[in-house]
Amino acid sequence: MKSILIKGAWIVTQNRERAIIKGDVLIEKGRISQVGRTRSSADEIVDAAGDIVMPGMVNAHTHVAMTLMKGVADDMPFSDFLDRVFALDAKRTEEDIGLGARLGCLEMIRGGTTTFVDMYYSEDVIAKGVEEAGLRGVLCWAVLDQQFTTQTGDPLENCKRFHQKFKGKEKILPGIGLQGVYVCSQETFLGAKEYSQKNGLLLHFHLSETRKEVYDHKAKTGQRPGEWLEGIGFLDQNCLAAHAAWLTMNEVSALARVKASIATCPVSNMKLATGGVAPIPEMLKASVNVSIGTDGSTTNNSLDMLQEMKTLALLQKANRWDPTVVTAQQALDFATVNGARAIGMGDKLGSIDVGKRADLVILDGKAPNLRPLRPDNMISNIVYSSNAGNVKTTICGGDILMRDRRVLTLDEEEIASKAESAAEELLNNIK
Amino acid sequence: MKSILIKGAWIVTQNRERAIIKGDVLIEKGRISQVGRTRSSADEIVDAAGDIVMPGMVNAHTHVAMTLMKGVADDMPFSDFLDRVFALDAKRTEEDIGLGARLGCLEMIRGGTTTFVDMYYSEDVIAKGVEEAGLRGVLCWAVLDQQFTTQTGDPLENCKRFHQKFKGKEKILPGIGLQGVYVCSQETFLGAKEYSQKNGLLLHFHLSETRKEVYDHKAKTGQRPGEWLEGIGFLDQNCLAAHAAWLTMNEVSALARVKASIATCPVSNMKLATGGVAPIPEMLKASVNVSIGTDGSTTNNSLDMLQEMKTLALLQKANRWDPTVVTAQQALDFATVNGARAIGMGDKLGSIDVGKRADLVILDGKAPNLRPLRPDNMISNIVYSSNAGNVKTTICGGDILMRDRRVLTLDEEEIASKAESAAEELLNNIK
Repeated sequence: MKSILIKGAWIVTQNRERAIIKGDVLIEKGRISQVGRTRSSADEIVDAAGDIVMPGMVNAHTHVAMTLMKGVADDMPFSDFLDRVFALDAKRTEEDIGLGARLGCLEMIRGGTTTFVDMYYSEDVIAKGVEEAGLRGVLCWAVLDQQFTTQTGDPLENCKRFHQKFKGKEKILPGIGLQGVYVCSQETFLGAKEYSQKNGLLLHFHLSETRKEVYDHKAKTGQRPGEWLEGIGFLDQNCLAAHAAWLTMNEVSALARVKASIATCPVSNMKLATGGVAPIPEMLKASVNVSIGTDGSTTNNSLDMLQEMKTLALLQKANRWDPTVVTAQQALDFATVNGARAIGMGDKLGSIDVGKRADLVILDGKAPNLRPLRPDNMISNIVYSSNAGNVKTTICGGDILMRDRRVLTLDEEEIASKAESAAEELLNNIK
Repeated sequence: MKSILIKGAWIVTQNRERAIIKGDVLIEKGRISQVGRTRSSADEIVDAAGDIVMPGMVNAHTHVAMTLMKGVADDMPFSDFLDRVFALDAKRTEEDIGLGARLGCLEMIRGGTTTFVDMYYSEDVIAKGVEEAGLRGVLCWAVLDQQFTTQTGDPLENCKRFHQKFKGKEKILPGIGLQGVYVCSQETFLGAKEYSQKNGLLLHFHLSETRKEVYDHKAKTGQRPGEWLEGIGFLDQNCLAAHAAWLTMNEVSALARVKASIATCPVSNMKLATGGVAPIPEMLKASVNVSIGTDGSTTNNSLDMLQEMKTLALLQKANRWDPTVVTAQQALDFATVNGARAIGMGDKLGSIDVGKRADLVILDGKAPNLRPLRPDNMISNIVYSSNAGNVKTTICGGDILMRDRRVLTLDEEEIASKAESAAEELLNNIK
């Protein structure tokens, strides 16, 4: 594996001190080996004078294969949206899932995301695309009660088989994806937890995205989903709850007690108009680990973490009539260090510290929309002023996935045009 | 002036039928002369196979010179924000205003905006930058009561002088910028209106951005700002009200009666957490002409109209718990045809129709984040999935301002680095 020296950049380290320093980053054997001024040389030199180097972002909740279904169900009532997306989902083929995954990976590479948490079936197919792309994927096989699934065989068994086949890889991290309390029984939740505990897998699940989901569950069990999950003994520190919008303070406390993480999905929640706004200030106060996810492309419709950070800050401020709620620094923390912690890799990812995996992105510090650029407005400019077009170079685990806006790992036009044909076919199938 | 032929594109015409067609756009003498398949040739051929051609967007409210002040006042209480921005504004020089304007123009060219409505003092200095950039600027000189201003001389007289000096130009359109009811008396409003009526100038003003502004005015006059402006006989169809957030249905009706326009500024309102959400559904029902503005870079912090369209749709949906509120097509209309109408140029700008000014942008239709791309998801992809990095080419009045992401009219690095130094100096001046 080639060593890489990134030279002369502004380094937004996201280390414990949140230091921003001017200097170099040396990458050896896929790890960060020096940060700051260095006289070392390397196999590959990246001149980043005036540019910003920051940790690759962690998209903590998505369904990457749905990238193929961008723009199929917008601006419609939620029930119509569900009908349409479920109809399409039921007709998907391994081919179009693989293409959708690759297309989504391209979008993430171009947007500065180096790690993502996925929830879907056929994660084995998705894994191949992610491996080709060179991204780090925490791939959580969708687990739900057999009566609700279109999967062949028992979903948890499928998930276990996927884990057995893909475990031990550096960048593919199998996880368990529980769809939600509306399709998962107590037995399903606890069966998943048992396997997670034995094997150290992430327990990723949808939690309280919609009001209906909360009140249906309350009608059925007498408890809100968060209370119920605590009551059955499911919650633990392997848990990463997506959305976590319609939560009470009791439920926030329950998550905090077990050191669980959440992935808030502001764009998706706003676009579907689900009403709930994740109580981020209360979560922070209770020390719940907050990360950010884009959700899938039918509900966003992009996988753009730079935009997601900004929208999150805007939504929280607007919701509380308080401009001090969710600062730029906090939003960047959610997308980097907290994202890493959410997948149990806080000691390995999320900041530019010696010894950590070399998951880095370089933003074009010369772009007019990022100027004037100074240490005191750098975090603000990243969160409030940047766009995905500012990402020049993306490195994951020491592999250069994109250099100077040229993706090196995948053939963009081949994937995009095949994905386009596959999407057309999929849409024809439900006509 | 060179003729230009854009070939083989998806043309998002925004014409009366909102037709999307595959074909060519011929530009002659700064106007659109053919749309659709053509055998014509031209001085300059732009191959746009697979790309999207759409009308250049109209940013209907900003303070472009404040681009220099990006990232100086974030995440702080509103009163602290005002103190800091006012302190900086009072120390500005002609040099840094000119640099800020140019830097903002660069950002707009790169983001697909071809026309913008500005409100500031020293619009003569700004105008020079806008002329160099080649953008279309409706430059509204800030008018307020003399006791509140740092301007030398009477602001309305300054405004008139600016108009006399710059009138008759193709791309610089002088206008009147009334700061708001909190610093403008009845005499100031009516004096401005009189000059506007005689000379056909836009009356651009801040309206009900904050709750305090509304209730202070009510305490003083017994009326809300919109009611009061109607009562004194100020409102007419030359009016373009920025923000228009804290409005009652009565005030919406007042705007509708006179065929006034509004520029909603969702990102700015959310970031400052001013609480009010412009009642866009009610405005549409009453046939108020709705356009979109980014506001200035201290409150956004970008001039990115693609992002602004998305955020507007998200905010309105989230606010109403209704995903059908503000569709992608409506958001695009606000940013194009309605923006043109807001500045009194509905017959000259805002759509790709033969005879209109050639204000066009080309988006990279091959970008992964815009794929799959089909006529049925094209508007959705523009509004929900695009980013400023997707803008390849920007044409204003038949002048190519940016081609294949290379800005042709301004020296980017020179402007950005000078702006950086000027910003530093400005910040040092208030220490």
